[in-house]
Amino acid sequence: MIASTNLQSIGFIFDLDGTLVDSAYQHALAWQRALQCEGMSLPLWRIHRQVGMSGGLFTELLLRQLKREVTADQLERLQQSHAQAYEQLNGTVRLLPGARELLKHLIDSKIPWAIATSGRLATARHDLAMLAVPERAVITRDDVTRAKPDPDVLLVAAARLDLSVNSAIVVGDSIWDMLAARRAGMLGVGMLSGGYGQDELERAGAARVYEDPGDLLQRLYELGLRF
Amino acid sequence: MIASTNLQSIGFIFDLDGTLVDSAYQHALAWQRALQCEGMSLPLWRIHRQVGMSGGLFTELLLRQLKREVTADQLERLQQSHAQAYEQLNGTVRLLPGARELLKHLIDSKIPWAIATSGRLATARHDLAMLAVPERAVITRDDVTRAKPDPDVLLVAAARLDLSVNSAIVVGDSIWDMLAARRAGMLGVGMLSGGYGQDELERAGAARVYEDPGDLLQRLYELGLRF
Repeated sequence: MIASTNLQSIGFIFDLDGTLVDSAYQHALAWQRALQCEGMSLPLWRIHRQVGMSGGLFTELLLRQLKREVTADQLERLQQSHAQAYEQLNGTVRLLPGARELLKHLIDSKIPWAIATSGRLATARHDLAMLAVPERAVITRDDVTRAKPDPDVLLVAAARLDLSVNSAIVVGDSIWDMLAARRAGMLGVGMLSGGYGQDELERAGAARVYEDPGDLLQRLYELGLRF
Repeated sequence: MIASTNLQSIGFIFDLDGTLVDSAYQHALAWQRALQCEGMSLPLWRIHRQVGMSGGLFTELLLRQLKREVTADQLERLQQSHAQAYEQLNGTVRLLPGARELLKHLIDSKIPWAIATSGRLATARHDLAMLAVPERAVITRDDVTRAKPDPDVLLVAAARLDLSVNSAIVVGDSIWDMLAARRAGMLGVGMLSGGYGQDELERAGAARVYEDPGDLLQRLYELGLRF
């Protein structure tokens, strides 16, 4: 007989930008401005598809697309200009529909959750304030050596929630979230709210794809949660 | 025997935003700001997926998503605020890679082409100037009763180029371009450069999907063009 105490041991690890907060497009524009400051130019759709990926891997993209090396100094400047440009744009950033309600529902139902982002805490603070989430529920780039698609932020999040990897559901809008989930041995669930297509997320391993946090809240039962 | 004069009668009808010019994301943000001015809020990914659709149909989306009617006055104000917000953002707009080279190649090869957009000429002028395209090569919302996904702009473009519908190739980044192409009886070709996923474009009827104008230029032969 299966121990019934294990039945409901399930928890959520959410991505932030494009998953709970409607900020993926502003991040793309902010990266474009940062690149323009360094005399580099990349189309927005390419930048958009890299949001949520670690900064080190992002420079790999630059290298391949622009056929130029990026020095450590330039990378540091890029990250600073991006943070500044994002701060100028984040006045238009809103929560995604149902984000607050979803987290409240999980708290009320005693289902553990955390937020794990490839961004830095300083950049995420504005968005976390909108969500009214305590900083201890958030794992950022500052807590690990490697950001997504490496599994590190997810593994730290699961440890903090006292969840085994096969009890953790990773919810994110980008293929980096889905790849990191697979590498961590966790179930990946996609969100269209970051602007990727459903097929891109499914091909990257999403077990299911929802429109936004509100849609996920309505259909939590599909993930096997009983209330 | 097939008349050899018909062999090379092929021509291109291009969409503008997201297809030749990297402006789809700025249009999405401009619509979001316009909506916020009217006290309405829609996530950017939903707006993004509607860019390139006629304004009248866009209000249909608002009605369904926000569950509220949009009056003719509000629609007019929305379109004006969108144009203003886009003007503020278009300093960051660039040509997509290969856009100018593609058009130059078609001119040099005497292959007819035109641009057909759901936007208004006043909004498109900045982007057309970057492309250095004469206004007579451009069919806009001002020239027809119904914008995409109705086929009107495409049919006017084909008539102006003296092309039959089955000689015209429609190149666009959105599903509205692909739907309009099908309704016009023309071949639709997708571009990833507007930010849609490849699968979304293929499901909407794209016969092929290219990354951007430069990628199309490199592989024009795949569309049956002989030089």
